[in-house]
Amino acid sequence: MSKIRVTVWNEGRHEKSNATVKRIYPHGMHSVIAEGLRRQGDFEARTATLDDPEHGLTEEVLKNTDVLTWWGHMAHGDVRDEVVARVKKHVLEGMGLMVLHSGHYSKIFKALMGSTCSLKWREADEKEIVWTIEPAHPIAEGIGERIEIANSEMYGERFDVPHPEETVFISWFEGGEVFRSGCCWKRGHGRIFYFSPGHETYPIYYHPQIQKVLGNAARWARRRVTLPDACPKAEAVQPIPKHEVDLSHMKNWGK
Amino acid sequence: MSKIRVTVWNEGRHEKSNATVKRIYPHGMHSVIAEGLRRQGDFEARTATLDDPEHGLTEEVLKNTDVLTWWGHMAHGDVRDEVVARVKKHVLEGMGLMVLHSGHYSKIFKALMGSTCSLKWREADEKEIVWTIEPAHPIAEGIGERIEIANSEMYGERFDVPHPEETVFISWFEGGEVFRSGCCWKRGHGRIFYFSPGHETYPIYYHPQIQKVLGNAARWARRRVTLPDACPKAEAVQPIPKHEVDLSHMKNWGK
Amino acid sequence: MSKIRVTVWNEGRHEKSNATVKRIYPHGMHSVIAEGLRRQGDFEARTATLDDPEHGLTEEVLKNTDVLTWWGHMAHGDVRDEVVARVKKHVLEGMGLMVLHSGHYSKIFKALMGSTCSLKWREADEKEIVWTIEPAHPIAEGIGERIEIANSEMYGERFDVPHPEETVFISWFEGGEVFRSGCCWKRGHGRIFYFSPGHETYPIYYHPQIQKVLGNAARWARRRVTLPDACPKAEAVQPIPKHEVDLSHMKNWGK
Amino acid sequence: MSKIRVTVWNEGRHEKSNATVKRIYPHGMHSVIAEGLRRQGDFEARTATLDDPEHGLTEEVLKNTDVLTWWGHMAHGDVRDEVVARVKKHVLEGMGLMVLHSGHYSKIFKALMGSTCSLKWREADEKEIVWTIEPAHPIAEGIGERIEIANSEMYGERFDVPHPEETVFISWFEGGEVFRSGCCWKRGHGRIFYFSPGHETYPIYYHPQIQKVLGNAARWARRRVTLPDACPKAEAVQPIPKHEVDLSHMKNWGK
Repeated sequence: MSKIRVTVWNEGRHEKSNATVKRIYPHGMHSVIAEGLRRQGDFEARTATLDDPEHGLTEEVLKNTDVLTWWGHMAHGDVRDEVVARVKKHVLEGMGLMVLHSGHYSKIFKALMGSTCSLKWREADEKEIVWTIEPAHPIAEGIGERIEIANSEMYGERFDVPHPEETVFISWFEGGEVFRSGCCWKRGHGRIFYFSPGHETYPIYYHPQIQKVLGNAARWARRRVTLPDACPKAEAVQPIPKHEVDLSHMKNWGK
Repeated sequence: MSKIRVTVWNEGRHEKSNATVKRIYPHGMHSVIAEGLRRQGDFEARTATLDDPEHGLTEEVLKNTDVLTWWGHMAHGDVRDEVVARVKKHVLEGMGLMVLHSGHYSKIFKALMGSTCSLKWREADEKEIVWTIEPAHPIAEGIGERIEIANSEMYGERFDVPHPEETVFISWFEGGEVFRSGCCWKRGHGRIFYFSPGHETYPIYYHPQIQKVLGNAARWARRRVTLPDACPKAEAVQPIPKHEVDLSHMKNWGK
Repeated sequence: MSKIRVTVWNEGRHEKSNATVKRIYPHGMHSVIAEGLRRQGDFEARTATLDDPEHGLTEEVLKNTDVLTWWGHMAHGDVRDEVVARVKKHVLEGMGLMVLHSGHYSKIFKALMGSTCSLKWREADEKEIVWTIEPAHPIAEGIGERIEIANSEMYGERFDVPHPEETVFISWFEGGEVFRSGCCWKRGHGRIFYFSPGHETYPIYYHPQIQKVLGNAARWARRRVTLPDACPKAEAVQPIPKHEVDLSHMKNWGK
Repeated sequence: MSKIRVTVWNEGRHEKSNATVKRIYPHGMHSVIAEGLRRQGDFEARTATLDDPEHGLTEEVLKNTDVLTWWGHMAHGDVRDEVVARVKKHVLEGMGLMVLHSGHYSKIFKALMGSTCSLKWREADEKEIVWTIEPAHPIAEGIGERIEIANSEMYGERFDVPHPEETVFISWFEGGEVFRSGCCWKRGHGRIFYFSPGHETYPIYYHPQIQKVLGNAARWARRRVTLPDACPKAEAVQPIPKHEVDLSHMKNWGK
């Protein structure tokens, strides 16, 4: 079987401006996410960032992408609308999408969900426990009953997204909140996975279980079809007898 | 109990340009839909059309609307984006939305669904049978096992929408197709119902059972809350002990 | 509108044998649950217990019940199978069912869910925070963002139930677990709500917000229809031409 | 990769008593279904029937089954309850189950769905068109937009099952009905697919597209885990401070 082609997209701005982020992700979060996938053997992972030409997401790149991962935060507004439209088109035609952490507020996630995608949040170095809700789901393969993250940004409910088609993980936070941290949807012919752990000031993408989730999710979300949109006029399959238009309900209306 | 406030929105262009449509809906489809609701007693129904100032959908109107119904077709592109954004905001805050027939391709429905909303279609005066799939659903109250429509435009699958949260009706067409003709979703705090029967050249909105479905759906979709969006920083509910940031996974990365 | 008729069912055994339970619920948990509903004004609440003749759930009682609530624990096995079958029949025909706390392991809940309904548990007097996930859902009306329960039995995931059609509440526990504590399903023509708070040694059913949830849920789950089962032979709606049986695929099989 | 182990179960009674069925399926429907899977290369298919000892479904057989297919009709009542319980246990632990045609009324399907599973039906040699609703679903791989079945037993809505988690196919019938003919659910850790085409007096299991659906569905439903049930008492993950039981809500009750 040929390798699954993942494009790991990262805004990449925190890494340029914030000393803590630079220290933890000296080559950017994307480099660690991509390398974590490559080490699993069945992925061909390339990276792209906001500051690349066309944000690194040309038609050519997307056509050759089975799964796109998306991390963004401080510069959601700098992502050009035509690139968002292009990514959306590819997801609806069959490309997988994994939206990570603060990507919940990206243009592309909001465009696919149709809702605000807002949530509660807090930065307090607190502990997060990610519980496996669906142990037989392919995304939970090999994860066990929970992942413990020593320090995490709290993301709390109400998470304003459409009812997930599958809820694979729910998180517990030390400060008292819960969060649907691993959720699946389909849009058009593409599969979408949102996964909340992954704050830029904590080394969460180095966590072996987090990398395993990302690999599992990429396998699950990978492109299976490429079906361009149409709204076709269709020939009848069965013969249709000739009918007069029946106006009886209209004629009875005033009575 | 106070009346449910429905705003019946209609593009209203076919009625101006097409003789058949003029003959069947001399005062516009909106006038028949609104009157059909008023006759049920528990609705206060007003109308609005594309050619009204701000398409008749000012902030003031939407704030005082419990359910908005949407019929559009030939002029989807003329609906201004800021009005679409305003309607979407109100749906996500709790206003109900009923999308009718060719409204499947409206900007507002596509923005809320996140998918292309395309389908197969054919105009052949053919028979449609609308089957009740969920007889205990409030939208099916009093409908019985089926609605027969003597002449209808065929809408056929694949209907490119997210998996409906509830599928109330599925239609059969004489030419051989099927269609999920009555579907429910929630987006944000609002309820959305899509109902496919209602082609402009047939007197479908005069059909007593179709009017009953529209009334039932408006009762089901009516605004229950008004919850403006926020993405709040939250104080902890439980005390959080002071933690050092644990860098062990990062340090083990190269090994 | 006539009152909603609720039958509050309780096993009622802990109350007879355990001093702590006797002290907190001297007249049984059912009496507090029923009284909490009555005080809301729109319910007619009666009670029934395991030790009543036919467990208090005769055909006559069920026929006149809009919603049945179910609390059981130590004597699930003593509930007679024919009474379980009778309750199930009534739920499938349209009666609402609210399954409370340890009722997750009752015969009736397992029969309707089709799964084991097992979970993790712990008695440690710990704090539970019940978070509202769907603030626009009728069951969450007036609840606000959370309910704090000072002492609760921990119920934790994996809760082995079918994917809830709606997840209204998710709970946080002091000891580190999460739980989908308020879940909705439909089976046949009946609505089912499972709500986990309510351990017999804590005064949870006296909590004003818990009573509000029970009232909201009973309004949501109340019987809307009574549709007896059938598997009818159906006359064709459309004429079917006479066909020879086509055996071509069979004839090509060996080739 | 090792082969997927399918056990094809058939009641096998019609084949013994009905001349038409004998002519079309001289070695039983199970032999055609099993052979249709074997020809796809990645399956190891064995068969079992009602009249085998323990219906051919011993603990040993089920433990070594990745997917069980179920066809039954005239003798649902002859399937022993302990075998049904054994099959259910294996599904909940991770074994896949494909329920075929009149198997909708089998004990095992009703036990897993929790509903009556009734439907409308008619034998009139009429045409069925099976429409693909989810073209990107693995079960629809290679099927195209529809399957035409020249002669079929009509199965019509309302099909009394829980809302499908995925609806892959919906059928059109010449006599005017529609039916959700290919539906997916999960129960416990197992995947369930119901597929309605397959009447005993028509050569439907010889149809190449039907065989492709059965192969796709078996790949989709195959066992991924084996997770025995437990309802474990759990040690706390986080330290729980000692709490007094708070009785304030109880004390305020009478006031």
